[in-house]
Amino acid sequence: MSSSTASRPLFRAIDVIRNKRDGLELSRAEIEGLINGYTRAEIPDYQISAWLMAVVLRGMTRAETAALTDCMLRSGEVLDLSLLPGRKVDKHSTGGVGDKTSLVLAPLVAAAGIPVPMISGRGLGHTGGTLDKLESIPGFNVNLSVAEFRRVLETCGCAMIGQTAEIAPADRKLYALRDVTGTVESPYLICASIMSKKLAEGIDALLLDVKTGSGAFMKNENDAAFLAGLMVETGERMGKQTVALITDMDQPLGNMIGNALEVVEVIDVLRGGGPADLRELCLELAGWMLPMGEVSKTVAEGKQRSAELIASGKALDKFREMIALQGGDAHVLDDPKRLPQAQHTMSIESTKEGYLAAMQCEQIGTACVVLGGGRERKEDSVDPAVGIVLHKKVGDKVAAGEPLATLHYNSQARAQQAKQLMEASFQISDAPPASQRPLIHKVIEHSREKN
Amino acid sequence: MSSSTASRPLFRAIDVIRNKRDGLELSRAEIEGLINGYTRAEIPDYQISAWLMAVVLRGMTRAETAALTDCMLRSGEVLDLSLLPGRKVDKHSTGGVGDKTSLVLAPLVAAAGIPVPMISGRGLGHTGGTLDKLESIPGFNVNLSVAEFRRVLETCGCAMIGQTAEIAPADRKLYALRDVTGTVESPYLICASIMSKKLAEGIDALLLDVKTGSGAFMKNENDAAFLAGLMVETGERMGKQTVALITDMDQPLGNMIGNALEVVEVIDVLRGGGPADLRELCLELAGWMLPMGEVSKTVAEGKQRSAELIASGKALDKFREMIALQGGDAHVLDDPKRLPQAQHTMSIESTKEGYLAAMQCEQIGTACVVLGGGRERKEDSVDPAVGIVLHKKVGDKVAAGEPLATLHYNSQARAQQAKQLMEASFQISDAPPASQRPLIHKVIEHSREKN
Repeated sequence: MSSSTASRPLFRAIDVIRNKRDGLELSRAEIEGLINGYTRAEIPDYQISAWLMAVVLRGMTRAETAALTDCMLRSGEVLDLSLLPGRKVDKHSTGGVGDKTSLVLAPLVAAAGIPVPMISGRGLGHTGGTLDKLESIPGFNVNLSVAEFRRVLETCGCAMIGQTAEIAPADRKLYALRDVTGTVESPYLICASIMSKKLAEGIDALLLDVKTGSGAFMKNENDAAFLAGLMVETGERMGKQTVALITDMDQPLGNMIGNALEVVEVIDVLRGGGPADLRELCLELAGWMLPMGEVSKTVAEGKQRSAELIASGKALDKFREMIALQGGDAHVLDDPKRLPQAQHTMSIESTKEGYLAAMQCEQIGTACVVLGGGRERKEDSVDPAVGIVLHKKVGDKVAAGEPLATLHYNSQARAQQAKQLMEASFQISDAPPASQRPLIHKVIEHSREKN
Repeated sequence: MSSSTASRPLFRAIDVIRNKRDGLELSRAEIEGLINGYTRAEIPDYQISAWLMAVVLRGMTRAETAALTDCMLRSGEVLDLSLLPGRKVDKHSTGGVGDKTSLVLAPLVAAAGIPVPMISGRGLGHTGGTLDKLESIPGFNVNLSVAEFRRVLETCGCAMIGQTAEIAPADRKLYALRDVTGTVESPYLICASIMSKKLAEGIDALLLDVKTGSGAFMKNENDAAFLAGLMVETGERMGKQTVALITDMDQPLGNMIGNALEVVEVIDVLRGGGPADLRELCLELAGWMLPMGEVSKTVAEGKQRSAELIASGKALDKFREMIALQGGDAHVLDDPKRLPQAQHTMSIESTKEGYLAAMQCEQIGTACVVLGGGRERKEDSVDPAVGIVLHKKVGDKVAAGEPLATLHYNSQARAQQAKQLMEASFQISDAPPASQRPLIHKVIEHSREKN
């Protein structure tokens, strides 16, 4: 319905919406006009939501995804850490159940001499969040100003905070809108949201832990690999070394789920113990981060060095230093009973003999949310003490009546609801499972894939 | 990212958006919840625009389209004309250039004894609008209340007004939002918009004139036939007899384009003259409406009876009666010079000898808008006097220097711009065009097609 030959204004949101609707590739100028106009509240929500739905259904090219990420990044402050010596490296996980690796990695990698400026999120849906876990440590403050964040980072080599108002404000506006318009589920939009925030940290390299399986947002490995490839290419296009590991989330990571319980398990790993899968994944991720920070030559060397930093207690010391600098009670490391404790426990027992064949991992995450360990609505507060301790993992032999898990709870009604979810999530079979899923499914580096 | 087993509210707009995004068929209850919630301003624009974009890209089933139409229809008042004797019949055109058939058909069909309650629109894009044409008759009031509309209809058998605030308010809100979110171009949304307004008129049968060609919104005949089939099935599902003719809009209809000029040509046709294509299309459309109103048995009989009503002057008398009842100066029928006249005229001449092979019909419509005969922005007023008179139609022989058209204008600057558009829209070839496009491409009745 175009009409006159009269001259037109340079930028019209409607043209960008139509072009995306019709499957055309948007120019950098079109994406920039849209994102800047939205950040400045010159373009209304209803135009952006129509555009977001067109992106969900039409997709984006690599160039469009990189341009979107860059415009979102530039909508706010980008930390300049160039005066801090060494390559700054961070890790991001797409989220899972029992995934507490960030709390191990930040001090472990910092202990190796690599600055780790980590900006994290809260629990989302059935998954836990790094900020909620840190806040279960009495006094720990995740709401530092940019200046305080920089000071902690300079002092001990790592710092962990939440997103500030200055970082990628376009992402905050877009995310709130996506949440209520059915436009969350697009790998292009997920990529731009994650990468714009992470690249605003002033890092040189980024390791991505992209989860796949029944407890991940990307249930399907191909979807996870697609998102990982998109993020790797976006990071590299923006001049940052970016590597992604596709890792397993078909059962919870480690044995503990719930905020304070997960901190206990982190302490175990930093003391050289902890469950095998969690310990192994932390060493693997650190193994990649050390060469990215140029303090070791190979991943194998990085893993070896990381194991030594745990054995020597240096990684634990670094965690102690960071907790203290961020106002937390560092004595929890020596006496984990200082962490919040639930009033009651309840055992979930196997009704029959056999092998644990599978766990419905999202349902286990949901059980933890139901106990109060996560939020059903944004405004809910989180109970740091509640959670789940698993006694069996996939492949384990189970006797009839043997405990599979223990619930830590403060409300009987919530515990009953969580118990039902837990019981339905264990699958016991007569024979042991034919094969075990690997912990690391795939490594995705710039334009190359390795199995 | 679903989570708990907690009970959920019965209706959530986000679920409907997601279902459409994922290509699922929406239930009547889902569509009703969305449309009612939007009409009552309980659902925000940004959720509806995301849903509209999902509809544009995912489409709708016939059942969804009918449910949407019905919900939009029921968002406002539905006229009850059951006390008025006889079957009420209306005609709707999807819009074109020089399409003034409504002004002929309302009085002609009413003269045959069929009540015609016609609610029309204004010019849109490059196309003219029935209301703008009627308002070029001094004093003619298209803004009647529902009670006044009913009184004119009862007195003379036809009445022509604009959409009132009471008719399909959901359509008015949705149309305004579609216009700014790139979601106009969906046959499902176009169908629901047209049919919800037309079926609110309290009619028993509806004839659809779906235009195709370079001057139509549906340039392609297949697109026009798809929309026509959708509207026919939607009307029939709602218990109204519905027939669609796919008619030609590859060149303007008749010779006159512009509001007052088109009224002059309407008077010519009602006096038994006028250009052949316009006269023929009016008789064909009336030929269909008479059997739909059950006053003749066949289309052929309907055409014959319509020709007689013109020859006897009864159709013109009916037009005179309606104009007077709606406050207009009925003397224009005897003295068309009483209609607004442009101050200047300018001739567009052929630069070479040959045959008029084709006209870029949308461009001719745009030339009329540029002269001031239509609106470039919603808030523009229309100049009723300006327009274009064509001296040649496709297939005609043309001498070098012979006038192809005459512009009627009030602004020299606008005339120059229109002249350029006009000159570029005529295609002169050495040989006559091999074939002529038919005036009627296709008839589409319930689940059947006829050539």
